Amino acid sequence: MKNIKDLKIAYIGGGSKAWARTLMNDLAKEEQLAGTVLLYDIDYVAAKDNETIGNALSSREDIKGKWKYVAKEKIDDALRGADFVFISILPGTFKEMESDVHLPEEYGIYQSVGDTCGPAGIIRSLRTVPMYEDFALAIKRCCPNAWVVNFTNPMTVCVRTLYKVFPEIKAIGCCHEVFGTKRLMVRMLKEKYGIQAQRDDIKINVFGVNHFTWVNEAHFKDMDLVPMYAEYVEEHPNGTEEEWEDNWIHLPDANNAQVKFDLYRRYNIIAAAGDRHLAEFCPGNWYLKDKETVTKFGFTLTTVKWRTDVFTKEKEDKTKELLEGKPFELYESGEEMVAQIKALLGLGDFVTNVNMPNNGQIPNLPNDVVVETNAYFSGDSIKPIFAGEMPKQISGLTLPIIAEQEAVVQAGLTGDYDLAFGAFVNSPNMTTSLDNAREMFDRMLYNTRKYLPFYDEYIANKKK
Amino acid sequence: MKNIKDLKIAYIGGGSKAWARTLMNDLAKEEQLAGTVLLYDIDYVAAKDNETIGNALSSREDIKGKWKYVAKEKIDDALRGADFVFISILPGTFKEMESDVHLPEEYGIYQSVGDTCGPAGIIRSLRTVPMYEDFALAIKRCCPNAWVVNFTNPMTVCVRTLYKVFPEIKAIGCCHEVFGTKRLMVRMLKEKYGIQAQRDDIKINVFGVNHFTWVNEAHFKDMDLVPMYAEYVEEHPNGTEEEWEDNWIHLPDANNAQVKFDLYRRYNIIAAAGDRHLAEFCPGNWYLKDKETVTKFGFTLTTVKWRTDVFTKEKEDKTKELLEGKPFELYESGEEMVAQIKALLGLGDFVTNVNMPNNGQIPNLPNDVVVETNAYFSGDSIKPIFAGEMPKQISGLTLPIIAEQEAVVQAGLTGDYDLAFGAFVNSPNMTTSLDNAREMFDRMLYNTRKYLPFYDEYIANKKK
Amino acid sequence: MKNIKDLKIAYIGGGSKAWARTLMNDLAKEEQLAGTVLLYDIDYVAAKDNETIGNALSSREDIKGKWKYVAKEKIDDALRGADFVFISILPGTFKEMESDVHLPEEYGIYQSVGDTCGPAGIIRSLRTVPMYEDFALAIKRCCPNAWVVNFTNPMTVCVRTLYKVFPEIKAIGCCHEVFGTKRLMVRMLKEKYGIQAQRDDIKINVFGVNHFTWVNEAHFKDMDLVPMYAEYVEEHPNGTEEEWEDNWIHLPDANNAQVKFDLYRRYNIIAAAGDRHLAEFCPGNWYLKDKETVTKFGFTLTTVKWRTDVFTKEKEDKTKELLEGKPFELYESGEEMVAQIKALLGLGDFVTNVNMPNNGQIPNLPNDVVVETNAYFSGDSIKPIFAGEMPKQISGLTLPIIAEQEAVVQAGLTGDYDLAFGAFVNSPNMTTSLDNAREMFDRMLYNTRKYLPFYDEYIANKKK
Amino acid sequence: MKNIKDLKIAYIGGGSKAWARTLMNDLAKEEQLAGTVLLYDIDYVAAKDNETIGNALSSREDIKGKWKYVAKEKIDDALRGADFVFISILPGTFKEMESDVHLPEEYGIYQSVGDTCGPAGIIRSLRTVPMYEDFALAIKRCCPNAWVVNFTNPMTVCVRTLYKVFPEIKAIGCCHEVFGTKRLMVRMLKEKYGIQAQRDDIKINVFGVNHFTWVNEAHFKDMDLVPMYAEYVEEHPNGTEEEWEDNWIHLPDANNAQVKFDLYRRYNIIAAAGDRHLAEFCPGNWYLKDKETVTKFGFTLTTVKWRTDVFTKEKEDKTKELLEGKPFELYESGEEMVAQIKALLGLGDFVTNVNMPNNGQIPNLPNDVVVETNAYFSGDSIKPIFAGEMPKQISGLTLPIIAEQEAVVQAGLTGDYDLAFGAFVNSPNMTTSLDNAREMFDRMLYNTRKYLPFYDEYIANKKK
Repeated sequence: MKNIKDLKIAYIGGGSKAWARTLMNDLAKEEQLAGTVLLYDIDYVAAKDNETIGNALSSREDIKGKWKYVAKEKIDDALRGADFVFISILPGTFKEMESDVHLPEEYGIYQSVGDTCGPAGIIRSLRTVPMYEDFALAIKRCCPNAWVVNFTNPMTVCVRTLYKVFPEIKAIGCCHEVFGTKRLMVRMLKEKYGIQAQRDDIKINVFGVNHFTWVNEAHFKDMDLVPMYAEYVEEHPNGTEEEWEDNWIHLPDANNAQVKFDLYRRYNIIAAAGDRHLAEFCPGNWYLKDKETVTKFGFTLTTVKWRTDVFTKEKEDKTKELLEGKPFELYESGEEMVAQIKALLGLGDFVTNVNMPNNGQIPNLPNDVVVETNAYFSGDSIKPIFAGEMPKQISGLTLPIIAEQEAVVQAGLTGDYDLAFGAFVNSPNMTTSLDNAREMFDRMLYNTRKYLPFYDEYIANKKK
Repeated sequence: MKNIKDLKIAYIGGGSKAWARTLMNDLAKEEQLAGTVLLYDIDYVAAKDNETIGNALSSREDIKGKWKYVAKEKIDDALRGADFVFISILPGTFKEMESDVHLPEEYGIYQSVGDTCGPAGIIRSLRTVPMYEDFALAIKRCCPNAWVVNFTNPMTVCVRTLYKVFPEIKAIGCCHEVFGTKRLMVRMLKEKYGIQAQRDDIKINVFGVNHFTWVNEAHFKDMDLVPMYAEYVEEHPNGTEEEWEDNWIHLPDANNAQVKFDLYRRYNIIAAAGDRHLAEFCPGNWYLKDKETVTKFGFTLTTVKWRTDVFTKEKEDKTKELLEGKPFELYESGEEMVAQIKALLGLGDFVTNVNMPNNGQIPNLPNDVVVETNAYFSGDSIKPIFAGEMPKQISGLTLPIIAEQEAVVQAGLTGDYDLAFGAFVNSPNMTTSLDNAREMFDRMLYNTRKYLPFYDEYIANKKK
Repeated sequence: MKNIKDLKIAYIGGGSKAWARTLMNDLAKEEQLAGTVLLYDIDYVAAKDNETIGNALSSREDIKGKWKYVAKEKIDDALRGADFVFISILPGTFKEMESDVHLPEEYGIYQSVGDTCGPAGIIRSLRTVPMYEDFALAIKRCCPNAWVVNFTNPMTVCVRTLYKVFPEIKAIGCCHEVFGTKRLMVRMLKEKYGIQAQRDDIKINVFGVNHFTWVNEAHFKDMDLVPMYAEYVEEHPNGTEEEWEDNWIHLPDANNAQVKFDLYRRYNIIAAAGDRHLAEFCPGNWYLKDKETVTKFGFTLTTVKWRTDVFTKEKEDKTKELLEGKPFELYESGEEMVAQIKALLGLGDFVTNVNMPNNGQIPNLPNDVVVETNAYFSGDSIKPIFAGEMPKQISGLTLPIIAEQEAVVQAGLTGDYDLAFGAFVNSPNMTTSLDNAREMFDRMLYNTRKYLPFYDEYIANKKK
Repeated sequence: MKNIKDLKIAYIGGGSKAWARTLMNDLAKEEQLAGTVLLYDIDYVAAKDNETIGNALSSREDIKGKWKYVAKEKIDDALRGADFVFISILPGTFKEMESDVHLPEEYGIYQSVGDTCGPAGIIRSLRTVPMYEDFALAIKRCCPNAWVVNFTNPMTVCVRTLYKVFPEIKAIGCCHEVFGTKRLMVRMLKEKYGIQAQRDDIKINVFGVNHFTWVNEAHFKDMDLVPMYAEYVEEHPNGTEEEWEDNWIHLPDANNAQVKFDLYRRYNIIAAAGDRHLAEFCPGNWYLKDKETVTKFGFTLTTVKWRTDVFTKEKEDKTKELLEGKPFELYESGEEMVAQIKALLGLGDFVTNVNMPNNGQIPNLPNDVVVETNAYFSGDSIKPIFAGEMPKQISGLTLPIIAEQEAVVQAGLTGDYDLAFGAFVNSPNMTTSLDNAREMFDRMLYNTRKYLPFYDEYIANKKK
């Protein structure tokens, strides 16, 4: 029995300016729990900053959830005896991401996010897998019974690596993309019927892989939202104006659900992620053929420059303010971290969508690969809920992605060039020739070599 | 969208004096719902009696849930357009059950219930399958989209037959045996720690086939009940005095959990059904070897005479009183029928244990066979929750039972003597010779021939 | 026990000028067997011609295998009581095929064969499925225990339809594409080591779907041919001059294995079909981007004009000669029809590659779909031999094809426009927009409407 | 490519007086192969004796197959670089076997062989698993690519352990029990039709676990032997006089197929092992209830005394004669070792029944467990042939056996008392009480403790 007033949470990537702050915020608002949050980060200074900010918050009288924040220089010191482990890191730096996302443009390949699949996602995965291998081994060593929650992308690859390396791990991956689809339904209810629903009252059946998830059942109370959605798509031939009402990430330009609606027209099923993600899973000539096509479909290619110059800067400024004493303003995060912790402690059952190994919840996808479906959280237990068979046309798009992810995890663990390149050249938006693909791959691999413990193996193993 | 104030519930076995009354009781207490209950029974008079009793109840001013009860002479008239179908019947009469349960005693085979497996269960199944074939076809014809809930035993065989005959049916089977184990845990918490828990606050992971279910995880809030149960077994070498505190069925003598505890000693896992049921799934020489063994293990062989002379009589007396105007006294049923209806209407999600086809929720049992695990009820949806692999020793006991059930359903649908007899002679408590088994089978089959549309086929198909 | 001197072979498509003649040839050379060949064809005159040609052959003194050939006007008269059924038809006419293959060129989509997958293959499938539905029902009615061998393309779709409609059918599909890869290995052995091997002494492990099969093990006696093949690919950067030494079909230009070798370079595994077939399963921008790319890769787009003006004409001329009395010249067909018949009669076990439902022989492809692997032929039995897991990159290409085939079979049986169009728009070489794809699909469907019993349903079911 | 004139065969149990001599005999008769046989045995003297006998044989002028025999004191010295490994050992001594087989008689449990399942088989397994763990590790270390053939019982447990410990091993288990059923069919053909068939011309489909295998298809040329067998059973109500014409092991009394025929009457399928083995897999009250039942069914309980005083003595005498110079008389062994070696070298394909992991060849048994079915041997490859679903009644008997074997392998690798005892108390012929079973288990475990590296763990882990 865990002492719910003396919990230990380890945070890998504890210098994080986004997810770690959300955790602080949500813990501060929950009075049933207390304990210590141990912050580990390769950027120790950033972890120290969060220690300062977190403890300042905890010391406030108006704060109900009292937690102690401690930065640790060594991962084992953070993990030892942890009840929960959260992971949110940036694999590599924006310099590597610059190569991932923009180098392929030289070959006519455009990517709207570049953190999940396709050329950028594959290279990012290759450098992320060895990091997650280390995390899995450290967790096995220091806190094998802890519940582990990952927020990093490439989500599926991260979670899959954890299970590959330490099969008994109790890990899930959490992503809020699906929430966006619930919010779209909230807006639809308002628009069409004047009904004001809460996001969490929208009940859905989800399946897929992270960022390429699908909803085939949706209810609000006794209303069936699926036929309503079909009408809504017809009523919005050019998309909604703005999908994200309270956009958590201030994109240079928000998408307007046109890709989502186009996919509905193709497949008669609701795609449940943002357009920029969805586009990257489809054949290269559909939505990402060129910049005109992207514009026509109402979304944008998020540049790495924007990530560094606008998005990151904003967070750095905010951190500075907090360190200088500006009070942390509590807000409604919309995230479920604390609800999940409570459910796992036996303090309230709970159903939500998570990324975890397929144990048959999607029977026509392979077992063991990481999929996203609903799961039931209760005392020390997260159990997937049966989601049903994926429609054949959707599985036709998804299975190659799974093959790509499996190959990339394996390659990342072993340094198998051919396996990695096979995934690369076979990815859905690889619209260039075999020779170009090989050149591009080699250049991208070289650019990220600093984070590839197996770089020499890749080169050595390369088929002649 | 269903109109929750004009629902249609069809009740097959609508003359039932037990389950149908519970439904009346629970509907009467729920003010959100209203509509019509259509009562079909081969005993039309009994259905008419329930119509009278139900309408009398509905007409009372103190009753919040207003339902109209209508008896129907034809099954199609009851089913047409139904939103929900409940089924609780007695397959055959107590005369057939007398043969099922007691004839095998001539061959030294004792059965404590005789409605699920073993010689009695197999013969009962053979006459039940054609009835459920008819129900499945009628449902397909009249209300293919209705949710169907079965209460009749043999539970697994009934539900399996529904799916075999009409694969798209939305059917489950509900049984309260598992609740008994939760109540045992409530008592344990009281006895050991003075904690007063509610049954529904005990959260468990269940798997198995109906009446032979197992619990490997159990929590009350943040307390892990499994190690507590291990201690409790050691503290009660001769069982508890009385397992069922508020025994719903007044047995001549209640069991005292000795079989349950013996199974825990053998397998280190919690058996979650009453002892009289559990005993029938085990090899014949374990708990049912002879009357002395039964007594030693603290349970009883429920006689059919008791069922007719005491149990049934009591219910008939009560019915007479109600018809003569004695008011229906509302009570706390502990059943979940109305909660399930509400969840399926979108009025409150809900997790409980049900019998439904294996879609991988128990990965080491065959797909499609009917198993008992937790399921998640929400708007127009019941989805099994992953339960995990059954421990090998338990699957060693369970898989032959599944093979028996599958053979019996198939034989019941086709009149295949060899298949039925193969299951019979191979059942776990078949402790007599091949020749004796054949003689016993033929006599029992003859005794139930009135309810076997295939009786002639059985005899004709018999291997020479 | 079948009388091997009075066998009954039914031939659907019995007017065939290719496969039916090969059967005549091979039966004539085998003295152990005799009986009747019943020829059914919608072109009764063509069947009559074959009756004449076959009987003339049988009457010759030098012929050991004596068979009687009888043309039948009704399919049931041909099938009744048959021991074996062969099927080789042209689904529709060359007019429909003209639309299948060449209409997509207007949208920039090139197809080298057009009988298997992609736009042409899908439309061809939609008109073929109802024909095979009829065949399956007729076989069920007239000769449910017969062994059925299909030669028609789309092979996988034909065989899958037979099993979908009559699941107990004993059917396989035979295709000689894999033999071409064995012949390539024969040539390789000669070229590199001066060894003269026989095709049937090359032992391989095959897996895949028809025309997109792969070989991961190959031996000639105690020589491992896989590393030898890797060298051979490196030694032939521009392909071999001519893959088919004794080209069974005189293509305007033969392929030179460049696509095969390119796939080896990509995936490190031997593709085992002709280049023109292989190309059609790959993303549209790989080998079929435009005519230049095709030329660069050393193969050709087989025009329907060539099929009618050259290929068909040649066979018609030959038929005319035979009918005019020119003697049938026996030849070494290289086909296995008679060897298969003999094995199934218990006259000699035999291993070869066939198309049949996946029963786990390729564990990472779905069960029940039709795959191509080795099978073991013995007395009244064809059993698949375990082939092993398909490498992930290959399954990434294959699973969408399977999804396409499954959708098309289902659509062909039910007239489901959305399902069919979903497959169409999602096919690997669909390089045009959703709107273009829909226009193309509608035009192609219209062009083949004469052979679509469900044409009206397609149009009616079409999503608005 | 292996040099077929310089092969290396390692023999674990190289002092064997039975299987090792058969290998010598069969190698001597085959002129295509030559090389070295390395004999390792914990009884080095016995291995040396075989070295002497083998080399004497090889030196004879009339011998075509020239092999050098070398005894090795260390297992690694025998295995290093081996192409093939054969294993035939006696796990423990006859002293331990005496306890296995006869101690249970004190509790009323009779066992006819005692080397496979049930109390004797389980205890034998517990001491065998650690030995096979060592073999697997040594093979991984010294010759990971060798083909490994096991002859030791408990066959299934031995092969399963090899795969558990070294999953990439290329191992099979070979047993000639199924041949006995083929011989019975040869006799049947002679008796009923005067046809003289050869054993290898009987083609069958086999499935099951070793010693509990079943045949559902059997052909001799174009004759279907299954209906013939059904008649044969009816014609022999008291069994055949003598099942084994040329009994390889001279039992005190041979069985007469009565158990086999009784099982046919129960299940309508041909049991394909000797009666003494079959009996041990059935519930304890069927064939092994007491000595009278055994006698009534026409078979015998093979005593360990007979094994030591008659069977072993005979072989020792024979060895002495050979060492003293009596020439080795070549004979027709009926075994397939050399045929298998040749097939694996690419010198002739071949189908026979073997024990290997289930890769779906029996789809309704769990994957990965070791089953017996036909397999296809060709160049460096043994691939299972699809056998089909096991009939439900048979799987009902088999699945608990598999659960027992899986538990025992796991317990043998880890020293888990509860797991081992769970299997023991749940074995089909465990007809005594839980308390007696525990006492018996503890005594038997104690008697075999010398061969249990985990003996202390068993005792320590024991549930209180």
